Amino acid sequence: MVKIIVDGFGGDNSPQDVVSGAVEATKRKSDLRIVLTGKKEVLVKLLEEKDYNPDKFEIIDAPEVIEVDAVPTVEFKTKPDSSMVKAFEFLRKEDDIQGLVSAGSSGAVLVGGLFKLGRIHGISRPAFCPLLPTFGGNTVLLCDSGANIDCKPSNLGDFAIMAREYAKIILNLENPRVGLLNIGVEAEKGNIASKEYYEYLSQMRNINFVGNIEGHDMMADKCDVLVTDGFGGNIALKSAEGGIKLMAKVLKTKIKDSFWGKIGAVTLMRGSLKKLKNHLENYTEKGAILLGCKKLVIKAHGNSSSSVFCNTILQAAEMAEARLCDKIEQVFKENKTEE
Amino acid sequence: MVKIIVDGFGGDNSPQDVVSGAVEATKRKSDLRIVLTGKKEVLVKLLEEKDYNPDKFEIIDAPEVIEVDAVPTVEFKTKPDSSMVKAFEFLRKEDDIQGLVSAGSSGAVLVGGLFKLGRIHGISRPAFCPLLPTFGGNTVLLCDSGANIDCKPSNLGDFAIMAREYAKIILNLENPRVGLLNIGVEAEKGNIASKEYYEYLSQMRNINFVGNIEGHDMMADKCDVLVTDGFGGNIALKSAEGGIKLMAKVLKTKIKDSFWGKIGAVTLMRGSLKKLKNHLENYTEKGAILLGCKKLVIKAHGNSSSSVFCNTILQAAEMAEARLCDKIEQVFKENKTEE
Repeated sequence: MVKIIVDGFGGDNSPQDVVSGAVEATKRKSDLRIVLTGKKEVLVKLLEEKDYNPDKFEIIDAPEVIEVDAVPTVEFKTKPDSSMVKAFEFLRKEDDIQGLVSAGSSGAVLVGGLFKLGRIHGISRPAFCPLLPTFGGNTVLLCDSGANIDCKPSNLGDFAIMAREYAKIILNLENPRVGLLNIGVEAEKGNIASKEYYEYLSQMRNINFVGNIEGHDMMADKCDVLVTDGFGGNIALKSAEGGIKLMAKVLKTKIKDSFWGKIGAVTLMRGSLKKLKNHLENYTEKGAILLGCKKLVIKAHGNSSSSVFCNTILQAAEMAEARLCDKIEQVFKENKTEE
Repeated sequence: MVKIIVDGFGGDNSPQDVVSGAVEATKRKSDLRIVLTGKKEVLVKLLEEKDYNPDKFEIIDAPEVIEVDAVPTVEFKTKPDSSMVKAFEFLRKEDDIQGLVSAGSSGAVLVGGLFKLGRIHGISRPAFCPLLPTFGGNTVLLCDSGANIDCKPSNLGDFAIMAREYAKIILNLENPRVGLLNIGVEAEKGNIASKEYYEYLSQMRNINFVGNIEGHDMMADKCDVLVTDGFGGNIALKSAEGGIKLMAKVLKTKIKDSFWGKIGAVTLMRGSLKKLKNHLENYTEKGAILLGCKKLVIKAHGNSSSSVFCNTILQAAEMAEARLCDKIEQVFKENKTEE
């Protein structure tokens, strides 16, 4: 049995898509239990519409909602009865709740992870880590995509170790390759910060550091884990998304103007394009784990649909079952003893 | 008549593709004259193979070649007879040569622009500026894509003015919108540097500053000019390229596995895909102007093909005819007087 707490009122499509995604997840994984937080009567009504199994759901009433555009720390302090604060509170105090999923504001999820739940001893900064696809059909874990904007080199050292553990435990890689996002492959490339990061990472004995990775090679299977400060990671992630969007737009126009468009095959092609779009959304809109917290915290994309919620919850359950956070905690404990 | 000097031995496909691109450019634009630098006998032989018009070409013998992986400043000092150094030398001293195109190392082009040619008075740092496509079919000028890795806020102020002038003169925009690349739209978002950039740009009275632009909106028609330090700009540009590449790979696989693939339409589809690839290369592999130098300097993509060289040379001719550099110099002179 694995129990995940889900913020029922986080994200653009909440609470409808949260609830339908959660119900679908319980159907796909029989030993999954879900705790939903939010306005109780609304959640119950939605669950009933979705033909849910009451044995698999608990509801924690939380009438308030954290606003996406407000200051996260203030929201957290002034809205103790919000769906997100309640979710973090129960995650911390209930041993059988193994993970949390929220599509609410990234800033608020970060505040919750840092101050409500707490960091693993030895990790100074948790980091958002989305899993990206690679050209060759594999994946690469980006760490950090935006939690820590200005970093010290030692923060990137922590990122390297915790992301490497993720790659070992979740991606089943034996000796994950750790790369540093930079603007050139040579050691001396980069801004002042990234040169310091390189220096620090290259002196760590316990990681498989493969050096600098440029933006166009981020998804080129040159590393399994790509560490960066949250500024660089955020620019890279969003710009890649921009490139994908551009390609989709150009493609649409080209197909319309092409031979295929002219013989009226556009309608049929649309199906293929939609499939392609779904395939890419599956990655770009997938949840990012907030790695480094005592328990599993997953930030789902603000725009998550029902199926993305379902996948993100199942992803959380998988990581919980693999005991990811406990294992990372163990590694940092052992590192500490070694020093 | 417009005369452009072209580094005959810069880029992966030099000198063959440089020469054929140059010959093609003279055929498309009758009043274009080209000066080629490099090993004379090689260049003459290639020109003769290409059915060139001898009235339109001059050759400056330069037997040495600047290495891409070597230290640019050292290369410049130790190879006075290289194709790139010669090109910069003649660009500086010959009044009738209006611009330079090289697909050689970016670092070397930057050294040439800074130390051989010189900056426009009032501009402390020249910047590489590629022109990117937008979702809506327009363009956006990225400034800087990698010439200045760590910047002061006043550098970005210069970028904003010179890029705005480019947009006015070359893109015919009346009041170009200037955006700042950042990780969130709010004024307080970003790392220490980008907050300072924002502060500086928002206090400039003479630009149309539209605020922060995120990576996924870089090509979303939200600004005409996107300023950033060279670190952020390089990460953004290359990551967008990575996103485009990923999409192309997925597309290829999906088409192969699709209905179209199964009925054998893949061969026909390949034509469309190739057209799409060419369309995107036209942007991603187009030259980037080194804006802020006394004369026109264009860095062509290292991987430029014959057709990309042709387009880049024609692009240089267009900018030279528009007297871009003189006009920017004039604006900085007037700004100085105003202060």
